[in-house]
Amino acid sequence: MLYTPSESAAIVLQKLRDTRPLVLCLTNSVVQNYTANLLLAVGAAPVMLQHAGECEELLRNCAQALLINTGTLTEQQAEVMLTAARTAREVGVPWVLDPVAAGVLKFRTDFCHKLLEEAPPAMIRGNASEIMALAGINAAGRGVESSHSSKQAKAAARELAQRTGAAVLVTGATDYATDGSRICAITNGDSIMERVTGMGCAMGALAGACLAVAENSLEAAISTAVIMGLTGERVANKHQHPGSFATAFLDGIDTIMPADIANFTRTAEEE
Amino acid sequence: MLYTPSESAAIVLQKLRDTRPLVLCLTNSVVQNYTANLLLAVGAAPVMLQHAGECEELLRNCAQALLINTGTLTEQQAEVMLTAARTAREVGVPWVLDPVAAGVLKFRTDFCHKLLEEAPPAMIRGNASEIMALAGINAAGRGVESSHSSKQAKAAARELAQRTGAAVLVTGATDYATDGSRICAITNGDSIMERVTGMGCAMGALAGACLAVAENSLEAAISTAVIMGLTGERVANKHQHPGSFATAFLDGIDTIMPADIANFTRTAEEE
Amino acid sequence: MLYTPSESAAIVLQKLRDTRPLVLCLTNSVVQNYTANLLLAVGAAPVMLQHAGECEELLRNCAQALLINTGTLTEQQAEVMLTAARTAREVGVPWVLDPVAAGVLKFRTDFCHKLLEEAPPAMIRGNASEIMALAGINAAGRGVESSHSSKQAKAAARELAQRTGAAVLVTGATDYATDGSRICAITNGDSIMERVTGMGCAMGALAGACLAVAENSLEAAISTAVIMGLTGERVANKHQHPGSFATAFLDGIDTIMPADIANFTRTAEEE
Repeated sequence: MLYTPSESAAIVLQKLRDTRPLVLCLTNSVVQNYTANLLLAVGAAPVMLQHAGECEELLRNCAQALLINTGTLTEQQAEVMLTAARTAREVGVPWVLDPVAAGVLKFRTDFCHKLLEEAPPAMIRGNASEIMALAGINAAGRGVESSHSSKQAKAAARELAQRTGAAVLVTGATDYATDGSRICAITNGDSIMERVTGMGCAMGALAGACLAVAENSLEAAISTAVIMGLTGERVANKHQHPGSFATAFLDGIDTIMPADIANFTRTAEEE
Repeated sequence: MLYTPSESAAIVLQKLRDTRPLVLCLTNSVVQNYTANLLLAVGAAPVMLQHAGECEELLRNCAQALLINTGTLTEQQAEVMLTAARTAREVGVPWVLDPVAAGVLKFRTDFCHKLLEEAPPAMIRGNASEIMALAGINAAGRGVESSHSSKQAKAAARELAQRTGAAVLVTGATDYATDGSRICAITNGDSIMERVTGMGCAMGALAGACLAVAENSLEAAISTAVIMGLTGERVANKHQHPGSFATAFLDGIDTIMPADIANFTRTAEEE
Repeated sequence: MLYTPSESAAIVLQKLRDTRPLVLCLTNSVVQNYTANLLLAVGAAPVMLQHAGECEELLRNCAQALLINTGTLTEQQAEVMLTAARTAREVGVPWVLDPVAAGVLKFRTDFCHKLLEEAPPAMIRGNASEIMALAGINAAGRGVESSHSSKQAKAAARELAQRTGAAVLVTGATDYATDGSRICAITNGDSIMERVTGMGCAMGALAGACLAVAENSLEAAISTAVIMGLTGERVANKHQHPGSFATAFLDGIDTIMPADIANFTRTAEEE
């Protein structure tokens, strides 16, 4: 690789702002507003739809990435998402799976497995319990929260990446990104990010935007983690309570520069 | 009672932060984000689902309270809510009804009555018009707003509590909490709270979190009112406009201490 | 006309605050919270419903305006909206159409045409591509964004107004309001408004509130544009990043005075 992971991520951020990729977000009802605002703030363009035919049309015509997030899954939404994932595969639009609460609830866990088999994504972003559950380990979080540290999910992440061909991004105190062979640890971030609803879900949407412009899925996963993490720790220096942090995070991701990403992110290749 | 209502509420807040109860919120589409952020900020853990089977599974496995809010009710959602209320009763998870616009719109008024009959909640939180409507008085608000003062609903609240076995919390300029025999008035709060959408709805979710840790439903109702009210009046001292108030309220409920609740809330037993 | 457009808009804002019109918003799932908060902040009263029977009941009993926004349209929601539009026409409640992404996606474009034929609105608010698409010009935006300047849509706006009888408000760098004969340009505003999700959608809801109190639809359209635009440019003087701008905008629309509207808005009659 000609660039370090941090340098690559800086290039991804610059490309993202230059090209404003259009990301179709099929996501849960709790976080739609924050997700759309985060994509706009970082420099991408969000679209959210609920109609299968419209999703197919947008994917065929202008969407550059797709996010599927299972946070408030219904039978009807699952059908729309399956259509969208299949269309994305067919037309070559990269897509990211955010398997919220996989392992905790049977309906969505089954649905995630179905997606992985029938129309696998370019990236999977989840917390440790979710990634372990998709890797076939008997792991369940507490509601939408992980019961495991991200480090405990390293082996599962690598195995899941190998099996599905997707890059896997496990988020937690340390984030791990892997393509099944290489694995990269990212230690930027701040614990207050767990106290704002939808921060992880919005990260999944950012992963879609990065997929649209990165050289490959691993680069996109690393870029996602460092952009979110560096923004989070910088904003947390000034805002230590969740209401003002959430608002300031949008300002922070608007103002973070590629040079900041290149110089101040902490990434390390691991075994 | 060994403790004053304020002291009990302080203990409830401390227990809530020590145990982080998981609250399943089946609530309207307008307020989900703010509700989740308020629960996270106060120290509880929110989950929002839309699938009946998943609600049942979460209630059987790990949810510690349930909120049902009728703000944007659909036929489909009513079925999910009925399943959830029945399951909650069966497995002993306390639940709170927030009967938004009951008395104004027939479909949801009928649905609330059905819930009260078939799977009564541990608490009902509403404005005066809503509580009066559920008590059988011909009262309709204007949209989601009350046409009556909370004081006018005192008798209805007591009657409704006696009939259903639920604690009733009527919110307004003064909040009233009753278990059908005792009634407690809480005068903390600020009128700007009515100018932020979902402030009352988020209060219903906080009621769920309090139910999960309080000694009884009346204590939970009083605790809900004083935590919201004291936070509101403190934040309103510095933020008199609704945008910055809503954000600062999340910071305020993150920082309010049990000692503040014990010392600065204004509660009074009434006839 | 006795008053200039700016003076009329000032009167509309004052009436809006004096009478607090109740606006039924059938809008997309991304922007409901911000829309409700904006209506509350400006001095109106929002209600959001998803059940056809409840919409009909509210329109017959107390709603004073209706908004239909196609942002996340489903087949089910389209039926509810059609019922609502027909009821609004029947009972004389003015309604505004916000045809989000019309021209981009076939299902919603067809649905908008159906609404225009069967139960035409009092106002249509859209970006240039949307207005051109409804006027029958082959124009498609990129997702929810316009591919044309508002100036390019002037002729289409006038034609659409003549055909439907609705006032048309095309928003962009310059906003244009027309009733089919007169056309008024409004140049207040700031480009940061495009970087907050739902700013245009909330403008559609404000249009509903203005319709409820204005002398006619053109006056309502002009008032909507100047209230949003003047608030936006004032807030943008102090808040140049999208997170804090969105919050401060709610404070700004709470504090803007009719005299500000009368004195500081820039409107001009055009050919």
